[in-house]
Amino acid sequence: MELTATPATVDDAAGMAIAFAEAQASYQEGGIPIGAALVAYDGKLLGRGHNMRVQLGSAIHHGETSALFNSGRLLARAYKGSTMFTTLSPCDMCTGACLLYGIARVVIGENRAFLGGEAYLRQRGVEVVVLDDAACVELMERFIREKPELWNEDIGV
Amino acid sequence: MELTATPATVDDAAGMAIAFAEAQASYQEGGIPIGAALVAYDGKLLGRGHNMRVQLGSAIHHGETSALFNSGRLLARAYKGSTMFTTLSPCDMCTGACLLYGIARVVIGENRAFLGGEAYLRQRGVEVVVLDDAACVELMERFIREKPELWNEDIGV
Ligand SMILES: [Ca+2]
Ligand SMILES: [Ca+2]
Ligand SMILES: [Zn+2]
Ligand SMILES: [Zn+2]
Repeated sequence: MELTATPATVDDAAGMAIAFAEAQASYQEGGIPIGAALVAYDGKLLGRGHNMRVQLGSAIHHGETSALFNSGRLLARAYKGSTMFTTLSPCDMCTGACLLYGIARVVIGENRAFLGGEAYLRQRGVEVVVLDDAACVELMERFIREKPELWNEDIGV
Repeated sequence: MELTATPATVDDAAGMAIAFAEAQASYQEGGIPIGAALVAYDGKLLGRGHNMRVQLGSAIHHGETSALFNSGRLLARAYKGSTMFTTLSPCDMCTGACLLYGIARVVIGENRAFLGGEAYLRQRGVEVVVLDDAACVELMERFIREKPELWNEDIGV
């Protein structure tokens, strides 16, 4: 599912652009608009994905876990120095998924709609960057206004 | 995939028996032999599953997350007072998945092969029970002896 052309080397702006394109795609599918991209230490895109609660009826396919799923089976060294881009602050599950695979950095679009495991990630040695991106904020605000019950279901409320 | 008959009400012994049957099924499929079962507050089985790294090429389908996936989309109240049975101490991702959904108890077959997020679960208010079950220990020991590289891949080592 190539929604935007993937540059040969993904920098932080490109990484968040891919995550946001995934979030938009999910919104257009009637799903939860959260997207993610996993980028290796050398800037190579390993995988991208979005929340699939609605599309797959899945409780475990969040943006970040879908990006990990779409990255396939990898050896531990492939994750070394990698960055997870996510349009929204990671929930406890996705926080734990990043810790399991030793992801080095988590770059977050925004944490206004939801504040996840940022402090725990930092405590465990992961670099966390919050962009407070206006487009990410606006998309989540629109979605939560339109489908509050679906949003609560996804975050276990 | 009904591997064992599911009693109308699943107590702790029955819950771990289902999780272990899932682990054995995965072993027989050439996969990683870790299984889980999610049981509601009233003893109703919500879902069961096993690690699917080999079978699906998936980095996110561990025993516990597969049980959550197979439980489908549920409202938050369905998880209230629930118990996750797992043959092995939960990794960071599965620890976080239990926290996301507010699972009340985690019953663990063994933690000799791997010690996961037990302390963090307790810190966050989840009841943790470790059975130190000989059959769970024996199955994981056999698997790690036979396929150490596959085991390391699954735990991100
Ligand atoms: Ca997500
Ligand atoms: Ca597992
Ligand atoms: Zn998540
Ligand atoms: Zn796990």
